[in-house]
Amino acid sequence: MTFCKNKCADCKSVCKMNEELLNREDDFEGDIIHDECGVFGAYDFDGHDVSSTIYYGLFALQHRGQESAGIAVGDTNGPKGVKCYKDMGLVNEVFNNENLSKLNGDIGVGHVRYSTAGSSVRENAQPLVINYVKGTLGMAHNGNLLNAVELREELSYTGAIFQTTIDSEVIAYLIARERLYAPTVELSVRNAMRRIKGAYSLVVMSPKKLIGARDPFGFKPLCIGKRDNTYFLSSETCALDTVGAEFVRDVEPGEVVTITPEGIFSDKSLCQEKHARCIFEYIYFARPDSKIDGMGVYESRIIAGKILAQTHPVEADLVVGVPESGNPAALGYSIESGIPYGNAFIKNNYVGRTFIKPKQGERESSVKVKLNVLKEAVAGKRVVMIDDSIVRGTTSARIVNLLKAAGANEVHVRISSPAFLHPCYFGTDIPSEDQLIASGHSVEEICKMIGADSLGYLDVTRLSEMIGGKTDICDACFTGNYPIEPPKIDIRGEMG
Amino acid sequence: MTFCKNKCADCKSVCKMNEELLNREDDFEGDIIHDECGVFGAYDFDGHDVSSTIYYGLFALQHRGQESAGIAVGDTNGPKGVKCYKDMGLVNEVFNNENLSKLNGDIGVGHVRYSTAGSSVRENAQPLVINYVKGTLGMAHNGNLLNAVELREELSYTGAIFQTTIDSEVIAYLIARERLYAPTVELSVRNAMRRIKGAYSLVVMSPKKLIGARDPFGFKPLCIGKRDNTYFLSSETCALDTVGAEFVRDVEPGEVVTITPEGIFSDKSLCQEKHARCIFEYIYFARPDSKIDGMGVYESRIIAGKILAQTHPVEADLVVGVPESGNPAALGYSIESGIPYGNAFIKNNYVGRTFIKPKQGERESSVKVKLNVLKEAVAGKRVVMIDDSIVRGTTSARIVNLLKAAGANEVHVRISSPAFLHPCYFGTDIPSEDQLIASGHSVEEICKMIGADSLGYLDVTRLSEMIGGKTDICDACFTGNYPIEPPKIDIRGEMG
Amino acid sequence: MTFCKNKCADCKSVCKMNEELLNREDDFEGDIIHDECGVFGAYDFDGHDVSSTIYYGLFALQHRGQESAGIAVGDTNGPKGVKCYKDMGLVNEVFNNENLSKLNGDIGVGHVRYSTAGSSVRENAQPLVINYVKGTLGMAHNGNLLNAVELREELSYTGAIFQTTIDSEVIAYLIARERLYAPTVELSVRNAMRRIKGAYSLVVMSPKKLIGARDPFGFKPLCIGKRDNTYFLSSETCALDTVGAEFVRDVEPGEVVTITPEGIFSDKSLCQEKHARCIFEYIYFARPDSKIDGMGVYESRIIAGKILAQTHPVEADLVVGVPESGNPAALGYSIESGIPYGNAFIKNNYVGRTFIKPKQGERESSVKVKLNVLKEAVAGKRVVMIDDSIVRGTTSARIVNLLKAAGANEVHVRISSPAFLHPCYFGTDIPSEDQLIASGHSVEEICKMIGADSLGYLDVTRLSEMIGGKTDICDACFTGNYPIEPPKIDIRGEMG
Amino acid sequence: MTFCKNKCADCKSVCKMNEELLNREDDFEGDIIHDECGVFGAYDFDGHDVSSTIYYGLFALQHRGQESAGIAVGDTNGPKGVKCYKDMGLVNEVFNNENLSKLNGDIGVGHVRYSTAGSSVRENAQPLVINYVKGTLGMAHNGNLLNAVELREELSYTGAIFQTTIDSEVIAYLIARERLYAPTVELSVRNAMRRIKGAYSLVVMSPKKLIGARDPFGFKPLCIGKRDNTYFLSSETCALDTVGAEFVRDVEPGEVVTITPEGIFSDKSLCQEKHARCIFEYIYFARPDSKIDGMGVYESRIIAGKILAQTHPVEADLVVGVPESGNPAALGYSIESGIPYGNAFIKNNYVGRTFIKPKQGERESSVKVKLNVLKEAVAGKRVVMIDDSIVRGTTSARIVNLLKAAGANEVHVRISSPAFLHPCYFGTDIPSEDQLIASGHSVEEICKMIGADSLGYLDVTRLSEMIGGKTDICDACFTGNYPIEPPKIDIRGEMG
Repeated sequence: MTFCKNKCADCKSVCKMNEELLNREDDFEGDIIHDECGVFGAYDFDGHDVSSTIYYGLFALQHRGQESAGIAVGDTNGPKGVKCYKDMGLVNEVFNNENLSKLNGDIGVGHVRYSTAGSSVRENAQPLVINYVKGTLGMAHNGNLLNAVELREELSYTGAIFQTTIDSEVIAYLIARERLYAPTVELSVRNAMRRIKGAYSLVVMSPKKLIGARDPFGFKPLCIGKRDNTYFLSSETCALDTVGAEFVRDVEPGEVVTITPEGIFSDKSLCQEKHARCIFEYIYFARPDSKIDGMGVYESRIIAGKILAQTHPVEADLVVGVPESGNPAALGYSIESGIPYGNAFIKNNYVGRTFIKPKQGERESSVKVKLNVLKEAVAGKRVVMIDDSIVRGTTSARIVNLLKAAGANEVHVRISSPAFLHPCYFGTDIPSEDQLIASGHSVEEICKMIGADSLGYLDVTRLSEMIGGKTDICDACFTGNYPIEPPKIDIRGEMG
Repeated sequence: MTFCKNKCADCKSVCKMNEELLNREDDFEGDIIHDECGVFGAYDFDGHDVSSTIYYGLFALQHRGQESAGIAVGDTNGPKGVKCYKDMGLVNEVFNNENLSKLNGDIGVGHVRYSTAGSSVRENAQPLVINYVKGTLGMAHNGNLLNAVELREELSYTGAIFQTTIDSEVIAYLIARERLYAPTVELSVRNAMRRIKGAYSLVVMSPKKLIGARDPFGFKPLCIGKRDNTYFLSSETCALDTVGAEFVRDVEPGEVVTITPEGIFSDKSLCQEKHARCIFEYIYFARPDSKIDGMGVYESRIIAGKILAQTHPVEADLVVGVPESGNPAALGYSIESGIPYGNAFIKNNYVGRTFIKPKQGERESSVKVKLNVLKEAVAGKRVVMIDDSIVRGTTSARIVNLLKAAGANEVHVRISSPAFLHPCYFGTDIPSEDQLIASGHSVEEICKMIGADSLGYLDVTRLSEMIGGKTDICDACFTGNYPIEPPKIDIRGEMG
Repeated sequence: MTFCKNKCADCKSVCKMNEELLNREDDFEGDIIHDECGVFGAYDFDGHDVSSTIYYGLFALQHRGQESAGIAVGDTNGPKGVKCYKDMGLVNEVFNNENLSKLNGDIGVGHVRYSTAGSSVRENAQPLVINYVKGTLGMAHNGNLLNAVELREELSYTGAIFQTTIDSEVIAYLIARERLYAPTVELSVRNAMRRIKGAYSLVVMSPKKLIGARDPFGFKPLCIGKRDNTYFLSSETCALDTVGAEFVRDVEPGEVVTITPEGIFSDKSLCQEKHARCIFEYIYFARPDSKIDGMGVYESRIIAGKILAQTHPVEADLVVGVPESGNPAALGYSIESGIPYGNAFIKNNYVGRTFIKPKQGERESSVKVKLNVLKEAVAGKRVVMIDDSIVRGTTSARIVNLLKAAGANEVHVRISSPAFLHPCYFGTDIPSEDQLIASGHSVEEICKMIGADSLGYLDVTRLSEMIGGKTDICDACFTGNYPIEPPKIDIRGEMG
Repeated sequence: MTFCKNKCADCKSVCKMNEELLNREDDFEGDIIHDECGVFGAYDFDGHDVSSTIYYGLFALQHRGQESAGIAVGDTNGPKGVKCYKDMGLVNEVFNNENLSKLNGDIGVGHVRYSTAGSSVRENAQPLVINYVKGTLGMAHNGNLLNAVELREELSYTGAIFQTTIDSEVIAYLIARERLYAPTVELSVRNAMRRIKGAYSLVVMSPKKLIGARDPFGFKPLCIGKRDNTYFLSSETCALDTVGAEFVRDVEPGEVVTITPEGIFSDKSLCQEKHARCIFEYIYFARPDSKIDGMGVYESRIIAGKILAQTHPVEADLVVGVPESGNPAALGYSIESGIPYGNAFIKNNYVGRTFIKPKQGERESSVKVKLNVLKEAVAGKRVVMIDDSIVRGTTSARIVNLLKAAGANEVHVRISSPAFLHPCYFGTDIPSEDQLIASGHSVEEICKMIGADSLGYLDVTRLSEMIGGKTDICDACFTGNYPIEPPKIDIRGEMG
């Protein structure tokens, strides 16, 4: 089962560490950096129903959250009120022809959600629909607030009640309170944004307006699309492609965009110079066919691969990616290095929510059930294996092990991101430091622990090259340089 | 299809009215005065789980609401927070061993709900669980507020947001706001009660207290039970019997009862002399094996039957009740009149939520599918048929028609309540006046319209005899004498 | 918990037996003689769809089997073949608008099934649809064969394969084999009947014929109905009432009825003089509003009550029935004895398939959850309690206990059937002898064991009076006089 | 919408054909050659449960059939009989911990199925479990018989009844009949095989034996695996990898393998020289990580791509594959041609059975919802697009259109199989000839119809190179050279 051939003293302890990783209670899911949420909004000025289009939009954003899905719609010309349906499950599990056809209206918002286990209850599904002083709002939110605890406490002291544990409810309260003084809902959104700190991309529907807003640092993406007389807001451009809409432009960090039949209005009063866009959107979260803030995700991954080839070259016979996100970087590595690109893994795409995970002790591990190696492709070869990240190390160890068991002579692991060292407070579910393999081990140690013949991370100083040299990114999980000072206590948990 | 044998001119128009009733689009469900809600609470001072007992308690209260069910529990010795599960459906559809076993805790509240169609959405299911300045509250509510619209507006103007359309959310807000000033949660409940007008029986769980409260008029029932070291609050005593608990006493109108291991505390500062207990609990809503405010429901229905025999005697061969609630009154009529009691109807108890209703034009009507006549029992006989009420008249007409078709020579209808003439604002779903057959027609006309040979209602002046002569009842739906002035606009709808 | 007041030596052991019964692991379901199956067929000569009418027919027969339900239909004018849908569950759980609307055709059969636990799998649900030499047959069967094991073996030895464990498959095979020689399907049915021994009421649909058949002894009921140009076959007349059809006549024991647009044909060649109609249909199985072989079920139960009053008189204040089937007998007892009739029990009708049964040791027993006592109705009274049967005795002991706990001074139990002493081989699920309380105990002992003050069974010699003096009944479960010699080995199990 | 820039007369009609293809009612599903079935068997000589392992095995074979799934198990040391659970749906939809844990036993077979629409009913799901003269058999079958109609008729004339429309039932009958004379079940299987013509890979479990059989031509794959003391039979080796088993060998065409604790026995009496292995397993059906009859599927696709590069070279900037099966061939084309390989498409893997397909007229087409183009990767480039086949042409036209819309300057389509011209009678669901675009159009016409700049198919004469030069293949769908004479009437439909 172990790959080590030399029985040297030092190696033994390393092998032991490797064995330990291989035998840890199976936690394939726990070893993935989870996406957070996806938001989508649509407003058809011609009055046609938008729920079906939002369904396809959410379907294209499914990779951003597989736990719950929801759609809220209103009829700008009909009776007041918002119809909403949401539940735990994938978009195509939550919605069927029957419930979708009841969601008739020409304006609407949708949401897909991932959440930490504790808050994985139906009550926390989005969109949130609230009745307040000026009518009804529907709201979908992607991100995580840093001052949510303080704001909840403050609101509580003026009599607020909370029925969920999501940050979105805090934002909704603030919008409602600001609306008591502000003449319009978009100004209320803007004013509420002055009070919240953190990462948020918001899509809000009021009875006659569709509003998009992005936090001043621009942590999370949000863009505008258009199809005939219908306007869209979406976390990613891939959803615009799916619904046949053209990309209009990104919402700017700090901007509040108000979409109405009278025109598209922009409030940039909260825009600031310093941005901190989440680099992990490019590395792993976003779909490769999306373009975020002007940079294509696929291209950025190709570049990462090229950089790896420059900084961590190796003599090898084959470059392979760990599907799916490792593939473009592998292609980049191949182009830059001249080592042939190939496929080494077949991924089983039928794993669904109800999949029965192998129990500890069963001969089928989660990794093996989901990934199989193309033996003939790797046998006898020196393989460069590109993956997007190493979290706890268990998955990496198992995949390296699969390759060795399939006959690979050498396995050189290249990671298309720097090493995770710090927690994220802005909506990415990175485990606490003590679980991050990189926080307690040197690269050399990690290399041995995962059983690789060599290991190279993307150099953090070259990270910005992935997005064309722009440096307005948040790389805090690698560097600890938080754009906003993190809270004293760990408030992570209820991201939207 | 018609039963009339004489083809006289006058009769023809009557027959036409009868035929019209018989042929109206099937609305069996719409022709029932619906129960509203049932509440149940439990607190085991020995620390055992209460969710299973609440399940059986709700099961016994199922007749009070078949649309949604929910249970919320907390652990007074464990981590903070309340676990809640609720969904659309019957108690035994919503709960299974899996979700019930996750609701562990020694204090809890439960709810079954009926609602008007418009608000029949999952968001409105109870119990309501809220986080507020002092922690978490679970709340179940039976009743309807008269000033909910004003209160919502008022709360909105101080920044409140509403995520449901149920009155319970308004009450929760008021409790939360009062808690900013009141030293205890029970005082907050008491103070909130000062602000709300209408009918409400409340069961509230705070982290360490189970609180029951009843509005000062005592519209809705609520009682206290005990089993070893476990205390209960319940809409009806039948649920106490089911869980093997003893009846302790009724909560008094206006009283706030606080149940803690340190003792049961009572705050009667809102108690008042004038009560207005809903007489329809005795006539139809409550289960006959319940005792409400000291009076047995079964016995009160027997008395109603006896009064009918005194005030509307008739020569006949058989007295029958329309199942289920007509049976005790029929027995009373039989005892008083000496006319033999018998069964005439077999009710199909397998009708569930998913039952496919006969379409207009199909030969099977909803009434016929649910009720069949024992032909041999009624053929050739003069039958006294006792029912609890006439709403639109369609069901009565159809049942009379079934009896005649089965060979009954005469059908004398006796109704164990006075005629419905006025809307209810306190939580009973009586249709609007224009749909009430009694509001536009004389007794004689109604008699002809439903095809009966004679018709007699319970005399409203003798209503109080049903409950032993006590006159502290609300009979507004018969008399229009509302204990609280009704609102100018029709605010009915979202009862709890 | 015990009701005994005298602490005499003898009594102690009796009380112990009573306590034991009360404390046995809860087996409310196991203490009921289960219905078997219900069959229904329809053929609309005008070509309209019959599936919706079959749905309502099965719904009226639901009491005969709550485990699985199914409908098979064909189109006599359309493409060949039979569409069938069946599953585990109640009629209204199995069918919805979607799957029912796909079952279009003018001829069809339906089935509801109860089964013993071991065979409770979807494969055994009916109707059975088979393709054979002459096309397609749909078949629904109520009963149990005595020679099924031999026939299966015999068929196996000529290469038959079996995909279910139900007798109906054996019958289907025989019909198919006979069809190789017989000129018509109805003759094949007749010839197959020559080979099978036991109880069976069959409804068979061939491409253009609806066929009903009843075994020569007539164990199970089957009748013919008519509505305009639609003909029906049904286990009970109550289903005819529900679908608005008139009763035409019963199928005679041994008769094969063939319904076609050309006429209704009858083959009585297998009819015989000796009949053995199951008396338990009248005592318990059939719905009281059904008429079986010319005798009303309700009336027969009234008579049983009257006989009990004659043979087992007692001084008492109140006669009550154990719902539902005990009520008519209680009424009969009251009429004959002059003791007032009343209600003592409220039954919770919301118990569904998914109901979570109380666990051993929980304070809520299955009996208490399903039945509650009207305390005020029985307190201080001497009560005659009528039930239809005693099986193991546990339920009787618990109900007597409930009455005593509610304050009844005396409880005199009267059973509207003789004591169960022998197994049934014809389709009724009577437990084996060692579980029948009557097979090992005298009436006096049973009386003490169930905690009653007196106990009286219906005299077996007067059983025939229940059905107007006719003696062509099967009373083998009481007398051991089997109309057909029972098999040497216990072949019970797979009744249809 | 059209891509054509020159408005020449000829082009117009071509463009019209292209438009027609693009606008045809969406039939993405209909434009895929469907897999048929996958079979899997396991026998643990140490007596441990095999159902969980069969679950993972079927999961790895899911690509061979997504319509129904089932597992049947027996206990060789316990009570007789086979437990089976099967239903419509994916493996992870059909099975959950509850139903899987009930399937305990040390021997078992599993099945995944695709079927033509008409037979997509639960009754046709496999495995088939039959009781016959010698006990119980479980059976799973992949393939299609040519003489099923004749055999059914013949069996009918000796009294057989059929409850499904699958060929497997015919095979089961033959085995049962042969068993009357044959001393062992494996000989019965062998003898039954003498009677059937067509394609079949069978896995059969008898009480103590696991039997695998493959038709004499070897149309469908079947292999043997081993893990400690557990033996496996599987359609593909990828399932062996998933469950951690080693590949032992392929079952030979015509061979009957009997696996028992006493040894693995082989009966090769039906083996013949002429084989006709389905080449489409390599082209599209099988998972690339499988090895079939000694040839790796991935490698064979690489070779196909290389041949295409040799026979249909073109000047271009980028080679892309249509996911998933087009990718290896694209890699092969790239290697051979030197044109860089890249990704052009992102496939949405979340499409499940319940996915709501876009309606005609909606702006989201099925193709667009499932595939999106990486614009930046293809814009301005001359693209070689490799797909595995063209069926009706609609999907190809739409994908070419997507590439052009994304800015591709030229799109050269290369197909890694010859053109479909003939129906398959051996279990592959190829549409009838009139729907095959290649049967009525020249390559040049097809090229224009799908909007490509050039089009090249794999040369049928070089097909055998894909599998290392072996010529024992069935290529009848391309050549019409059927290894067995096809039936006069079209009997396709119920493949297993």
